[in-house]
Amino acid sequence: MTSLDLPAPGSTAACERADAARNREHLLVTARAMLAEGGVDGLTMDGLARAAGLGKGTIFRRFGSRAGLLRELLNDSEMTFQEGFFSGPPPLGPGAEPVERLVAFGRERLRLVTLQGDLLRSVEAEAEHRYSAPAHAASAMHVQMLLGQAGVDGDLQVLTLTLLSSLDAALVLYETRDLRIDLDRLADGWEDLVRRVARA
Amino acid sequence: MTSLDLPAPGSTAACERADAARNREHLLVTARAMLAEGGVDGLTMDGLARAAGLGKGTIFRRFGSRAGLLRELLNDSEMTFQEGFFSGPPPLGPGAEPVERLVAFGRERLRLVTLQGDLLRSVEAEAEHRYSAPAHAASAMHVQMLLGQAGVDGDLQVLTLTLLSSLDAALVLYETRDLRIDLDRLADGWEDLVRRVARA
Repeated sequence: MTSLDLPAPGSTAACERADAARNREHLLVTARAMLAEGGVDGLTMDGLARAAGLGKGTIFRRFGSRAGLLRELLNDSEMTFQEGFFSGPPPLGPGAEPVERLVAFGRERLRLVTLQGDLLRSVEAEAEHRYSAPAHAASAMHVQMLLGQAGVDGDLQVLTLTLLSSLDAALVLYETRDLRIDLDRLADGWEDLVRRVARA
Repeated sequence: MTSLDLPAPGSTAACERADAARNREHLLVTARAMLAEGGVDGLTMDGLARAAGLGKGTIFRRFGSRAGLLRELLNDSEMTFQEGFFSGPPPLGPGAEPVERLVAFGRERLRLVTLQGDLLRSVEAEAEHRYSAPAHAASAMHVQMLLGQAGVDGDLQVLTLTLLSSLDAALVLYETRDLRIDLDRLADGWEDLVRRVARA
């Protein structure tokens, strides 16, 4: 990439880009607040326009559709989560023992699912191949690497898929809402399973 | 229930019931053959009527709708599976060691999912609460009981849900079709996990 590809700071183009980035961030923050309050069903394009103080046209131009908005919210969280486990601070990120990183991975994922579970579930259910989504592939790569580093033997690919299935959004929401199992119990259950697997 | 509720053997009503039962069995066997050949998409009400040599009206009266037919096919398999683990021969049924029964449970479930996976997946995806279906509850009760009998300690409810999540139809179909992991590897992976959990 040459310097011609990037507008000089202070130019009109740079200002427009900075505006667009601010708008996007403002919209995502507003949408997250709406999600926290009213769940996925409460997040409409009309409501978002009103809450963000922007025109509905701006919002449709930015996200294409409500489904586009939901996907972008999810991608944004997934990116943050991935950054966390690939390069964030330990114990989730590099620097801790592999088993501790595995424990932290499941705990963080469970926290994320319960925080924005409806969103994850709506996108997971929508996709024909929810397991083949890039986010799932990144998690699988990471977990399988840590199992290897921890010296766990056996069929690590199958074991990884099994471990990840217990963090599936639809399952976790069923556990927390229908069965009233709280997040701490699920996180302890994850830790217990990881330690049993690593010990054996 | 008094004897008046049941028609005498040989009466017109008894013959009609026997006819209906034969028809039902004939339709389910025919539908299973169609499933094996063309998957869920290949199973239409028209096609079933033709293949079974019955009127389309009879089929709609019997199952209500195509969704009703799919549910009945699945219920029928689930009942057979449940009979197998509750009261069938060991190692799936009573009489074997709890860990061996757990191993047999997962192996049989995986075999079932790969045999009629599309059917299971279409019904699982349809139901808002696939985990709260009676079939899932019966499996959960059974697995949790066996974990207890095997002397496994810890949060057995959460552990049960985790173990069962690895037998989820959508996941197993993704593993076998998209990732080309064969049934034996999945079954060995299940056995390995069960033994690690029971040993620890």
